[in-house]
Amino acid sequence: MALGMPCCAAPSSFCSSLWNKMSHGDSNPAAVPHAADDIQGDDRWMSQHNRFVSDCKDKEPDVLFVGDSMVQLLQQYEIWRELFSPLHALNFGIGGDTTGHVLWRLKNGELENIKPKVIVVWVGTNNYGNTAEEVAGGIEAIVRLINTQQPQAKVIVLGLLPRGEKPNPLRQKNAKVNHLLKASLPKLPNVQLLDVDAGFVHSDGTISYHDMFDFLHLTGGAYAKICKPLHELIMQLLEETPEEKRAALA
Amino acid sequence: MALGMPCCAAPSSFCSSLWNKMSHGDSNPAAVPHAADDIQGDDRWMSQHNRFVSDCKDKEPDVLFVGDSMVQLLQQYEIWRELFSPLHALNFGIGGDTTGHVLWRLKNGELENIKPKVIVVWVGTNNYGNTAEEVAGGIEAIVRLINTQQPQAKVIVLGLLPRGEKPNPLRQKNAKVNHLLKASLPKLPNVQLLDVDAGFVHSDGTISYHDMFDFLHLTGGAYAKICKPLHELIMQLLEETPEEKRAALA
Repeated sequence: MALGMPCCAAPSSFCSSLWNKMSHGDSNPAAVPHAADDIQGDDRWMSQHNRFVSDCKDKEPDVLFVGDSMVQLLQQYEIWRELFSPLHALNFGIGGDTTGHVLWRLKNGELENIKPKVIVVWVGTNNYGNTAEEVAGGIEAIVRLINTQQPQAKVIVLGLLPRGEKPNPLRQKNAKVNHLLKASLPKLPNVQLLDVDAGFVHSDGTISYHDMFDFLHLTGGAYAKICKPLHELIMQLLEETPEEKRAALA
Repeated sequence: MALGMPCCAAPSSFCSSLWNKMSHGDSNPAAVPHAADDIQGDDRWMSQHNRFVSDCKDKEPDVLFVGDSMVQLLQQYEIWRELFSPLHALNFGIGGDTTGHVLWRLKNGELENIKPKVIVVWVGTNNYGNTAEEVAGGIEAIVRLINTQQPQAKVIVLGLLPRGEKPNPLRQKNAKVNHLLKASLPKLPNVQLLDVDAGFVHSDGTISYHDMFDFLHLTGGAYAKICKPLHELIMQLLEETPEEKRAALA
């Protein structure tokens, strides 16, 4: 078992609790649902989760975004209000989240009382302690959970982006995750992988701060680039097929 | 010595290196300059620092912002382009930075080849492992360093904001840091503390996600609130006094 960094960075009680969960369940640590530890001390992670659960009770989203900071920051830019707010979209992104965190949130209320038509999943780049195979498995576990709890929903998994100013192991790992998902996701129902890398790596191997201001998170301009194809795909998926229309009327 | 969490979350080589530095220098761990460890593996922190050092060689900022994500994210909002870009401002914010990280950056090139008239400092909320006294001491060390290396610069220290949806120990600590700075900063030359808390804590003790989308980082609307008084103060400081004008002409 390669728990790696997340465990080192957290209290040992977290490690043993994760170990207990794993010994009774999935052997892939990236597919084990677990709440984030409040290591900073202001309980923000749980506050955000509770807010999302509350949103599920009050709102009727047609489109749901779930994931890490890449999802969360999107809502802070104008492009969100332009393209996604009009679609009755909710944003359940939490900075720093791993696949295991998202699994826990989705299993604990963030898929209840709603019936979205499209769910966009974007998570995995924070799974520092996991191999590419484990991260891909974690993302597949999220899709399977959505398939079970929201069978009507069409799922879009966004490919992980390259990161770091210069070539580095995390870029290779994220690329491998995408490669693995390309092979595995077609075996699951109602899901497709969308590659949103708008050519962020230049010919000299660098990524520009004009696209990723800290060489990880996207600028408004970069979000605008990746959101165009995403919005088009969502619009396609929101248009019901004749069979779906008949089923809805029956 | 209470090194606390940052040390637990980092490799032990980091701890011993910090210990070595401390045993030869400042006894306040929050005033010890140290580079961030590349625990994620894509070297983004150093890439950002190198970019800032390079900016210092190419650009001539009148205003410099330095700090953590609260500074960094500001540049992603329209308000930056509206209020601060026209002032020839540079933004040297790095997400997650502590006072020690900022000290290291400023000692390693981010104050060279430039002569800003105003420097805005906003850091300290990430010093999880430090006491309020240590954090305030770390901020004072930053101001002292600026006073020495950029004696012409007028320094604005932004007070730490409350955080977390509900009352929590980090809110108390940040408030105490502000209280300590209110007493200590007037003893240093060319510096003033600016309280930018626009009433973020409501009467029931909560902070709204409309102001802090993750109960820490500011939304565009909240930045607009805090940037108005900050911009006014910067404009005041940019207007030279008659004495300064005479000195410049002499």
